[in-house]
Amino acid sequence: MNSNVIFSNDVPSRLLQAINDLKPGRVFILADNNTAAIARQLGIPSASLITISDGDDHKNLDSLTHIWSELQAGGATRHSLLVCVGGGMVTDIGGFAADTFKRGIPFINVPTSLLGAVDAAVGGKTGFNFHNLKNEIGAFAPAHTVIISSCFLTSLPHTEFLSGFAEMIKHALLSGEPQLSELLNANLASFDPEHMLQLIRASVTVKQQIVSQDPTETGLRKALNLGHTVGHAFESFALSRGKPVPHGYAVAWGLVTELVLSHMRFGFPTTILHQVADFISHNYGPFLITCDDYDSLLQLMTHDKKSLYGEINCTLLSQCGQPHTDVTLSPDEVSAALDIYRDLLHI
Amino acid sequence: MNSNVIFSNDVPSRLLQAINDLKPGRVFILADNNTAAIARQLGIPSASLITISDGDDHKNLDSLTHIWSELQAGGATRHSLLVCVGGGMVTDIGGFAADTFKRGIPFINVPTSLLGAVDAAVGGKTGFNFHNLKNEIGAFAPAHTVIISSCFLTSLPHTEFLSGFAEMIKHALLSGEPQLSELLNANLASFDPEHMLQLIRASVTVKQQIVSQDPTETGLRKALNLGHTVGHAFESFALSRGKPVPHGYAVAWGLVTELVLSHMRFGFPTTILHQVADFISHNYGPFLITCDDYDSLLQLMTHDKKSLYGEINCTLLSQCGQPHTDVTLSPDEVSAALDIYRDLLHI
Repeated sequence: MNSNVIFSNDVPSRLLQAINDLKPGRVFILADNNTAAIARQLGIPSASLITISDGDDHKNLDSLTHIWSELQAGGATRHSLLVCVGGGMVTDIGGFAADTFKRGIPFINVPTSLLGAVDAAVGGKTGFNFHNLKNEIGAFAPAHTVIISSCFLTSLPHTEFLSGFAEMIKHALLSGEPQLSELLNANLASFDPEHMLQLIRASVTVKQQIVSQDPTETGLRKALNLGHTVGHAFESFALSRGKPVPHGYAVAWGLVTELVLSHMRFGFPTTILHQVADFISHNYGPFLITCDDYDSLLQLMTHDKKSLYGEINCTLLSQCGQPHTDVTLSPDEVSAALDIYRDLLHI
Repeated sequence: MNSNVIFSNDVPSRLLQAINDLKPGRVFILADNNTAAIARQLGIPSASLITISDGDDHKNLDSLTHIWSELQAGGATRHSLLVCVGGGMVTDIGGFAADTFKRGIPFINVPTSLLGAVDAAVGGKTGFNFHNLKNEIGAFAPAHTVIISSCFLTSLPHTEFLSGFAEMIKHALLSGEPQLSELLNANLASFDPEHMLQLIRASVTVKQQIVSQDPTETGLRKALNLGHTVGHAFESFALSRGKPVPHGYAVAWGLVTELVLSHMRFGFPTTILHQVADFISHNYGPFLITCDDYDSLLQLMTHDKKSLYGEINCTLLSQCGQPHTDVTLSPDEVSAALDIYRDLLHI
């Protein structure tokens, strides 16, 4: 389940080397509207470009069918290679398309967003949204190689940068206070690419260490779902209202709510809870909900992939770096935590 | 990649035991029009039945989407279970649906056809047809348990029985002459269920031994493709003409052609080639092609999943039980073999 993960800001040469190592037949590149230009600039010889529409609402069956059709029409065989150039949307759906085309062709991920770099591109989870539920259909399929850089981030919209940064906060919470402090004190307005690559490397390493111990999420890997039970519910809720929010923003708000729950259940320190909540309130603003929305949100949480037997299932922390997976929550507890989330976010 | 394979004609009790062992949350049953009645008679408590249209032309994206939707609407979680009751079409598409729903829920196969029992239900290959190409999209995903019986075969149309029998001939060719002789001398018009279960067990064992050594088909497993490079081309060709043929019939005719190629390349004994060809001619009749069809057939063979770099790739035999995988064939060789196939089938 392990990928070869390369951290480098010299993407074209490292990518070419990875492709040459694989000795593929035909090479296909998947990109979306926004990343097609980057894909072309990578200069992969004799590659066919497949383009899909950008945005999470296009991470759907239509886009998947388009990729399969293009691979088929382009004469892809089991020895062909798909290079996914883009954010998590492209690497998630591209990885799934590759893993299921002729029962599996290899793929390489070149994440171009911070979220893609620190989360989606590494760890083998692929998939797409189905009937408004996030990543409802998917597979565990590691990329052959992932090339992680910070060189595409300077042109990234600030919203997308923040979206990825939320996952880095999550990894830091799972790692320890020093890593968390470094992030909460970082200057998000301007950063040095090499320093950012170091922060990304530290963040990805947290994920890799967890995934390598539990690739198919039967135990420890569930720790990586911190912030995501509530976060996914926020995200699906926003989508169903026709006002989608960036994944990482939903995770940021989910983290605040789940740290509240962590305090309620396991005495997670309020100092750190407030530091994180203030940081997120300041940088991400609030996700506006009222108590009339709680029923819908609770309903969405019971549909989460991690949910068993229709219960609400969560990962919580007793301290930074001390996760408790498979915590079952009552609707009353979650409602109480949502009340406090609204206070912390000044809603 | 191994399933728990049970050979028994007491299906309801063995199935119930297998379900109880898994301790699933909700249980869903997948069947097609023809097997829904059998599925109901199995008496699985509190199971939700999902029905799809029967026939290989419904092993498509629409049926798959229907299964995913029904699982979702029925509140399936990662701890739900899908029981696939039917022929290879049902177990292939059901296994793929289960393996990709929420990145994978367990499934049990209860094959009701001979083809399903000896081929599709065991070995972890799942998938569906896409743009007229067979099993173009799929995954390697073993059933948790497979319950193989002969009790559903007595009501099977003779065509379907023969379709499965062709795969048994293939397994026997990969095993040795004694197993082949027993099959070629069997009375196909009437059989004892327990004796048939023994023949099926011997046949499935050949497949299991091969699959266990190479689950994802990187080497030895390709031996199981004997008959299938030409067979799949026949099948796709028939489908594209709007005159589908049963899978096993296509394999039977493919076996004859590939045994001809085996003789041409590796000196496979003509005595056995003629015995097999006579048996197939007598029981299956001919698949009618003319030399005008060769180009289309060759084109289809280069699109086969086993094909690398657009070449025609085949498994051939030098003797019964002595396969040679990854044999690359020229169009001229295949055309010559198709000429001899037509002679042997008296076309």
